[in-house]
Amino acid sequence: MLDELKKLRKNIDVLDKKFIKLITKRLKIVTEIGKIKKKHGLSIHDPIREKKMLSSRCEEAKLNGVSSCLVKDLLKRIMRESYFNENQEGFKKICLNLRPIIIIGGLGKMGQLFNKMLKLSGYKVHILEKNDWHNAKKILNNPMMVIVSIPVLLVKPIILKLSSLPKDCILIDLTSIKHRPLNVMLNVHSGPVLGLHPMFGPECKNLVKQLIIVCHGRYPEKYEWFLEQMRIWGVKLYVVNAIQHDYYMNFIQILRYFITFSYGLNFLEEDVNLKKMLDLSSPIYHIEIAMIGRFFNQNPELYADIMMSSGNNIFFIKRYYKILSKLITILEKKDKEKFIDYFKKIKTWFKSYAKKLSKKSDDILGQLNDNI
Amino acid sequence: MLDELKKLRKNIDVLDKKFIKLITKRLKIVTEIGKIKKKHGLSIHDPIREKKMLSSRCEEAKLNGVSSCLVKDLLKRIMRESYFNENQEGFKKICLNLRPIIIIGGLGKMGQLFNKMLKLSGYKVHILEKNDWHNAKKILNNPMMVIVSIPVLLVKPIILKLSSLPKDCILIDLTSIKHRPLNVMLNVHSGPVLGLHPMFGPECKNLVKQLIIVCHGRYPEKYEWFLEQMRIWGVKLYVVNAIQHDYYMNFIQILRYFITFSYGLNFLEEDVNLKKMLDLSSPIYHIEIAMIGRFFNQNPELYADIMMSSGNNIFFIKRYYKILSKLITILEKKDKEKFIDYFKKIKTWFKSYAKKLSKKSDDILGQLNDNI
Repeated sequence: MLDELKKLRKNIDVLDKKFIKLITKRLKIVTEIGKIKKKHGLSIHDPIREKKMLSSRCEEAKLNGVSSCLVKDLLKRIMRESYFNENQEGFKKICLNLRPIIIIGGLGKMGQLFNKMLKLSGYKVHILEKNDWHNAKKILNNPMMVIVSIPVLLVKPIILKLSSLPKDCILIDLTSIKHRPLNVMLNVHSGPVLGLHPMFGPECKNLVKQLIIVCHGRYPEKYEWFLEQMRIWGVKLYVVNAIQHDYYMNFIQILRYFITFSYGLNFLEEDVNLKKMLDLSSPIYHIEIAMIGRFFNQNPELYADIMMSSGNNIFFIKRYYKILSKLITILEKKDKEKFIDYFKKIKTWFKSYAKKLSKKSDDILGQLNDNI
Repeated sequence: MLDELKKLRKNIDVLDKKFIKLITKRLKIVTEIGKIKKKHGLSIHDPIREKKMLSSRCEEAKLNGVSSCLVKDLLKRIMRESYFNENQEGFKKICLNLRPIIIIGGLGKMGQLFNKMLKLSGYKVHILEKNDWHNAKKILNNPMMVIVSIPVLLVKPIILKLSSLPKDCILIDLTSIKHRPLNVMLNVHSGPVLGLHPMFGPECKNLVKQLIIVCHGRYPEKYEWFLEQMRIWGVKLYVVNAIQHDYYMNFIQILRYFITFSYGLNFLEEDVNLKKMLDLSSPIYHIEIAMIGRFFNQNPELYADIMMSSGNNIFFIKRYYKILSKLITILEKKDKEKFIDYFKKIKTWFKSYAKKLSKKSDDILGQLNDNI
């Protein structure tokens, strides 16, 4: 009886070994593809090929009576690894100009990431760190591009020091706010200016499918090559104006940091038992706790600066705080009617995306559950 | 040149097709395994086998020069599908008593799920719905178990109607609060009493690795078979006392619902453009928006009842609200020192779990990124 089970499990083990062999082969081919892509300056991420490939595999899955969802998830996971493998081959250098790129704050985590990607693409990169300013004239000698990757509060004073860059030098900042830094850059430098906001952490190992928000400054034709270079890295670029960018970041960053911080502070002050809380949690809450923990594992200065960098943030948070107070009143009065009324209005607000978001959250929950 | 790329991509397509064939075979074997497990009453989820299998595959991956993380993720995803396939075979019936099980509220979503699982395990299940109470005496004729699966506000009045159950009948509720319902059950019924809280949505297709919290009521030896039955379904059981359960649910449910609701209300009142917000979002925020959207796609009554069911909730939320106000003061005063001080204290609070949680969040972010 249990021999029967053992036998079947052995069969599964044999299949799984074949599986690993297949993956090994696949990743080797992918390395070859990486070489060709590098040679021809093709982007590491080809969404059209990806979509076509996935949909024909899904068709085949259906013909075999296997869930196409399953096949899609598996292939996507393998592709993530593949992109990483292609990465190792480096990237085609788009701009053949011989002058170097300077990263100010190049030893910070994000600075290091750009440094790595630029070097993988064949550029000469110099770094200008806190203690290098006495030597700045030498380091900043005729660069083709200067990338400012420093804490938000230092952006203005540092950029003000960059008044004598060559006229054709491209000046770029990576701050998570865009309107003011962009204006400072435009005032200080008369050449090409570009604001970027990388929407990922510096711990990213490859940039495929990662989002960088682009706020154009001046002479976009002069830095178009750099956008193309990032596309080759696999980055997804999204262009928006700086004021809109800053407005949306209230939701996407400021409010999230505020809530995450408050959750952490609540845990601390309620002195809850973390082990027990994790034991009692469903996968969704596991991820929430993990994300809160992740936040507090980062640099507090960075978040203090972002949160305190603008009076607008406080203004925005206070508006949100009023909404919380409204909600508390509803709960306190047990005003079920109002609760349901708002609930339905918000549902309507989500309307056209509800189905898509619901599917997405199903996928996520499934994946979370795999990892318990 | 591009012919070269085409050729390699064709090779990949060939491998991927082999891949699908392998998965098809594997799932067929799994169906066979399901039959054996059913026959012998083995749990659909065997964590020891799973762990052993994964670790030897990871070893083999390493030997092949492939990331063991990759192999682990792939096998876990395949196993999720496998559990679903094993599910189809039904489950061994643990309790051979011939009397039926009654689900009060059995047409609600969670009631339906339990109905399905019990029937797949060979039990006779009757349902008692809102409109069946005139017929209750007949339906409630000598049941071996009564499961109360109804909105939280109705739990007390409904349980009060169950005063004449047979002495050996097991009385169970599935509410998301446990202390008071459990007491009501203990007062009304003198036989075995059990409080359960399923930590998953009723849309779950199989219960493997899903968590059900167990609050013992009375005569646990009488309902041990039912706990065993759920283990066979693959459920993970966690025993805690009802008061502790309710305390932790303040964090795991009440506070989350409160914040989720407030986020939605904030979107509504700020009248933000959802499309643009999604375009500008990184994967983490995508998932947050998806989860908020998911919340508002559910039944508002349910959440109103949970939130308003207890004065304790309000008390707890108000304590949290004070923390928010403290945080606002810190931001408004630009009190960086205090900000960093709290930040570090919270980091310390997370201490022993920081690494584990950080790894978990890395995995999650990777997966999220696959799905863009």
